[in-house]
Amino acid sequence: MKGFAMLGIGKTGWIEKERPECGPMDAICKPLALAPCTSDVHTVWEGAIGDRHGLILGHEGIGEVVEVGSLVKDFKPGDRVIIPAITPDWNSVEAQGGFSMHSGGMLRGWKFSNIKDGMFGEFFHVNDADGNMALLPEGMDLAAATMLSDMVPTGFHGAELADVQYGDRVAVIGIGPVGLMGVAGAALRGAAEIYAVGSRPNCIKVAKEYGATYIINYKEGDIVKQVLELTKGKGADKVIIAGGDNDTFDQAIRMLKPAGRIGNINYLGFGDYINIPRVEWGVGMGHKVITGGLMPGGRLRMEKLALLIHNKKLDTSKLVTHKFNGFENVEKALLLMKDKPADLIKPVVIL
Amino acid sequence: MKGFAMLGIGKTGWIEKERPECGPMDAICKPLALAPCTSDVHTVWEGAIGDRHGLILGHEGIGEVVEVGSLVKDFKPGDRVIIPAITPDWNSVEAQGGFSMHSGGMLRGWKFSNIKDGMFGEFFHVNDADGNMALLPEGMDLAAATMLSDMVPTGFHGAELADVQYGDRVAVIGIGPVGLMGVAGAALRGAAEIYAVGSRPNCIKVAKEYGATYIINYKEGDIVKQVLELTKGKGADKVIIAGGDNDTFDQAIRMLKPAGRIGNINYLGFGDYINIPRVEWGVGMGHKVITGGLMPGGRLRMEKLALLIHNKKLDTSKLVTHKFNGFENVEKALLLMKDKPADLIKPVVIL
Amino acid sequence: MKGFAMLGIGKTGWIEKERPECGPMDAICKPLALAPCTSDVHTVWEGAIGDRHGLILGHEGIGEVVEVGSLVKDFKPGDRVIIPAITPDWNSVEAQGGFSMHSGGMLRGWKFSNIKDGMFGEFFHVNDADGNMALLPEGMDLAAATMLSDMVPTGFHGAELADVQYGDRVAVIGIGPVGLMGVAGAALRGAAEIYAVGSRPNCIKVAKEYGATYIINYKEGDIVKQVLELTKGKGADKVIIAGGDNDTFDQAIRMLKPAGRIGNINYLGFGDYINIPRVEWGVGMGHKVITGGLMPGGRLRMEKLALLIHNKKLDTSKLVTHKFNGFENVEKALLLMKDKPADLIKPVVIL
Amino acid sequence: MKGFAMLGIGKTGWIEKERPECGPMDAICKPLALAPCTSDVHTVWEGAIGDRHGLILGHEGIGEVVEVGSLVKDFKPGDRVIIPAITPDWNSVEAQGGFSMHSGGMLRGWKFSNIKDGMFGEFFHVNDADGNMALLPEGMDLAAATMLSDMVPTGFHGAELADVQYGDRVAVIGIGPVGLMGVAGAALRGAAEIYAVGSRPNCIKVAKEYGATYIINYKEGDIVKQVLELTKGKGADKVIIAGGDNDTFDQAIRMLKPAGRIGNINYLGFGDYINIPRVEWGVGMGHKVITGGLMPGGRLRMEKLALLIHNKKLDTSKLVTHKFNGFENVEKALLLMKDKPADLIKPVVIL
Repeated sequence: MKGFAMLGIGKTGWIEKERPECGPMDAICKPLALAPCTSDVHTVWEGAIGDRHGLILGHEGIGEVVEVGSLVKDFKPGDRVIIPAITPDWNSVEAQGGFSMHSGGMLRGWKFSNIKDGMFGEFFHVNDADGNMALLPEGMDLAAATMLSDMVPTGFHGAELADVQYGDRVAVIGIGPVGLMGVAGAALRGAAEIYAVGSRPNCIKVAKEYGATYIINYKEGDIVKQVLELTKGKGADKVIIAGGDNDTFDQAIRMLKPAGRIGNINYLGFGDYINIPRVEWGVGMGHKVITGGLMPGGRLRMEKLALLIHNKKLDTSKLVTHKFNGFENVEKALLLMKDKPADLIKPVVIL
Repeated sequence: MKGFAMLGIGKTGWIEKERPECGPMDAICKPLALAPCTSDVHTVWEGAIGDRHGLILGHEGIGEVVEVGSLVKDFKPGDRVIIPAITPDWNSVEAQGGFSMHSGGMLRGWKFSNIKDGMFGEFFHVNDADGNMALLPEGMDLAAATMLSDMVPTGFHGAELADVQYGDRVAVIGIGPVGLMGVAGAALRGAAEIYAVGSRPNCIKVAKEYGATYIINYKEGDIVKQVLELTKGKGADKVIIAGGDNDTFDQAIRMLKPAGRIGNINYLGFGDYINIPRVEWGVGMGHKVITGGLMPGGRLRMEKLALLIHNKKLDTSKLVTHKFNGFENVEKALLLMKDKPADLIKPVVIL
Repeated sequence: MKGFAMLGIGKTGWIEKERPECGPMDAICKPLALAPCTSDVHTVWEGAIGDRHGLILGHEGIGEVVEVGSLVKDFKPGDRVIIPAITPDWNSVEAQGGFSMHSGGMLRGWKFSNIKDGMFGEFFHVNDADGNMALLPEGMDLAAATMLSDMVPTGFHGAELADVQYGDRVAVIGIGPVGLMGVAGAALRGAAEIYAVGSRPNCIKVAKEYGATYIINYKEGDIVKQVLELTKGKGADKVIIAGGDNDTFDQAIRMLKPAGRIGNINYLGFGDYINIPRVEWGVGMGHKVITGGLMPGGRLRMEKLALLIHNKKLDTSKLVTHKFNGFENVEKALLLMKDKPADLIKPVVIL
Repeated sequence: MKGFAMLGIGKTGWIEKERPECGPMDAICKPLALAPCTSDVHTVWEGAIGDRHGLILGHEGIGEVVEVGSLVKDFKPGDRVIIPAITPDWNSVEAQGGFSMHSGGMLRGWKFSNIKDGMFGEFFHVNDADGNMALLPEGMDLAAATMLSDMVPTGFHGAELADVQYGDRVAVIGIGPVGLMGVAGAALRGAAEIYAVGSRPNCIKVAKEYGATYIINYKEGDIVKQVLELTKGKGADKVIIAGGDNDTFDQAIRMLKPAGRIGNINYLGFGDYINIPRVEWGVGMGHKVITGGLMPGGRLRMEKLALLIHNKKLDTSKLVTHKFNGFENVEKALLLMKDKPADLIKPVVIL
């Protein structure tokens, strides 16, 4: 079969590979819709997971089941399914402890285009099909549904990590597609005032539609100062970090109330340390909680988030700014994600 | 001063009383807007808190501060303030333990028109002004703001007690004004599918606007069966009880998934026991959590909920179906609440 | 192979059966130590799970692995393992939602001697071996370890359901082996004062050793009154129910503080309803949380609880009052459990 | 009245001051037992809270009430009371939000010897007496009780912040008196294996008595490596930081499992930043929660922790290595705390 792969750091191309084999718990799917992710860009051009040769990329997609293993109970060939970017081993001790995304080791619930081939192939393999696939609800738009693999669960997890509650003032730093889902996720947990930090006009427009109350643009001054002014010096109750780098945590701590929480969902690719400012962190005793986590994957999560779209509580179509038709355009879509033109939020390829 | 009071079980009328005195921590306010509550109806016509003679009614209102005690730091005469129905003693051990509404004993955080005179007087007394009042945001509509005293915090507490999470299927039993806020509160915590149980056309219309996905009408069959059908036999993830009686818990358990939660915010006025069906409760081991609680009051809660209205995340004006002008109409508004005409959700009196 | 089985309601006996087959994820074990449970008594003599013919009993035991399926990674023949009473399907949506004991439906994580043969056979089958077995730590006493299958996780879950916190006053109703583990579990979560409700002298002695501060004996008066007296009328912070019947909930609510919690771990075998007293439950608004749940099983739980015994934080040997040698004594042990002589807490059979 | 005070950075001495005045909510006490704290040492010799002239030191003590304000309901002159180091304003929005220690601003619940005179005077002032004092249980040893003001609640809060659960492997870094209470607190929340990091022989001895399973001595090699070896490379489930400096967080992250938690209770006096190692923190997505917090004070907490001592669940007398008699010895006790002789854990002065 054909697949679009990483050939080495900085290099991509089409390769031929064997169709993956299906174990007793697994499924083989063919893609119906695919989306490239900034993580694919990190993987190829930043060497985020190391050098790889012939690793098929992609971990966001909707598929059609073509084969299932003998122990699979709930799916059959022909089913149209949502596949999450994170597909844990559900019987691992980590999953039993509530953190399936770290099954088998830190971040090891992430398998597609990391420890096995991704979805940008004519066929792809899903481990633990019953545990990791969800039926695509009838009539759901494929492009909008593709956002369920990673953008929605990652962004919403930011709001969970930050533990947004009714009436909170929440800063969301970074309003790319994940940050926009952080904004939507904060609004859907009852945030009363959302400070969206970003500067790209198309993202600002969509951030407001998802519930941002104020836009904080770093070009108009220190973002910490802007948040403190809007909160009359008190700071935000919660901060979701969906962009920036190690230094963003310094800003986040400074704009955060005592007993606030930082929920990071941004991949940190460079540098040795994240620096937490001692005094603003309350000399160690300010109850400012710092956490960050890979999205929860698996079937239940997909089913629940899909229901939000199905019942029109969430409109992910706003994220999809570029649509392509045909498997061969996966390459074009990925390069678009790499080059980030001004009008891009997220491209999707329909097959 | 004049006040509209309970004169005995089943009897109300205007009385003359001394203006309340202001302790060092307290404030005296005059009402700017008032609303009667179903609880006032329970108090007078069902003797819910026992027989009372000359107890001024009312615990929902917006006021203007006319006097503050010597220890009050954050308020001064002339301030326009939201006053919650529940005004705890914040230094009590119960409040320290996280349950201020039970400060001094179960439900004893409820003081207005219960253990002291309520708000339907020319003046009323607020204990612990700094802890229990919140500034009315600039430009907020008085009638809409009055819903902050009780309707919003009670309804939203239902969604908190039921612990609504992203993608949940939530049944809300009862869609009077509190239940409608239960619907809105569930939607604002990320419920994906809301089954609103009710039959009054005006409430149904507003329930849908607040986020109800399906309306369950008891006239169209057993409500448990209807919910089970809509959930393909699985049951709802969570149930908010905002109406009905002791038997409603039986229905709630039957329509609830294992490991689901029931959050009750309905006053139970009659009968000796609430009956929990043994088998459907998992012979004691189904992890179906049953709880119910008086709303959290106090300043922080009012500030947070007011911000939701201020930033247009929540529109309480939909609840206000009847508006009166003039203090003297408090009586008319209360009788309306008692008689519940078909077009009523909630009346407000503007002074 | 031989097995000791339920032959019909009220009837037990030895039967011959095929050795169970081992699926790809599974293991076959032979027992090293076994214990009968009150649930076995309910099953046989009360028909708790319906009539069954030829169902091998038993769900508490330590075993030696004799065969593993092709997908099992962490165990091999010869390993000595702890097997929990509850062996969930870890990839089910229920397990993903945090309630593995209800995988596949309410209480369906309980498989041994319920929906498949139990452990009282020459061999028994463990579904999802990697997910549901734990290595027996070196040098651990077999009889003491057998308490890990059910007694420890069930009793400790009571303290979790009741959410015992530092300094709490906790009532534990029922001090059979499960209730005794409720006492130990409450003590190990920081309870400051434990009211153990029971009357059997040997259990009272052990309850004190596990941390009970006061013994409440129903023969000395109303147990509610006794708890209220000891708490100066305030009531207990938490109640763990590990015995009694439906009416015990009435007592538990009456002895519980507002905002307290009831954690039930007792199987309720009879009656239609559990009756919750309306007024003492705060007319629906007292925040007295009522919950109950089947123990969490699985590997992680077994590993964690075993470590407590291994490091001498918990001594389960106090529970084992009767020890037998030889498989054939399983019958005698079960009858002992049924007849409950005065000196019995828990019998174990070593093979 | 006389008081022992900070006269400037690095200088202490006895001063004369007016007896403090008693507001309507307050109490005036005279000390019965006092203990100096490492924080007093930080205050005087490290200038931790800035330069102060004539600030009476001390925030750990047991007192006798000599005067109460007109609004105080539950205490009267002659009562013997425990006074916590942290005495919040309970009606503040921060306390209403669950973080009373930050009432009025980050860490501002700490008033004694910080924003007002401390307890090392002939008399001292307690704000909000009903909210911040607890009756000393009959017969409790004064020296042991003095540990309730700060050592117990601070150490135990470490175990709460780290969210220790049944069966956890917990590292406690630092085993001075606070760290020892971290060990005891972890044991009392069900930790199965405790790695106590320290090197002083007397502290090691007591750490074992409080429940430490292994002692990790930095003199015997890298502490991270030692913890990883003991946990077979998996890392600890939780880390309590009760000593060290900014760099300790780097070690803590490295010895911590994915999805683990760090609870810091150590005052961080120097340096600009706490450095979190990026890769070991899971490139931002490892769910390793970092938090730290000032102890919760107030009456309820004191009552609950006192009950643990009263019922012999906790023996704080092990901490008290040096006992003095007479108010004048406060100076000697403080200097002992500063000089830390090998046999010191905690000195107490009985008056």
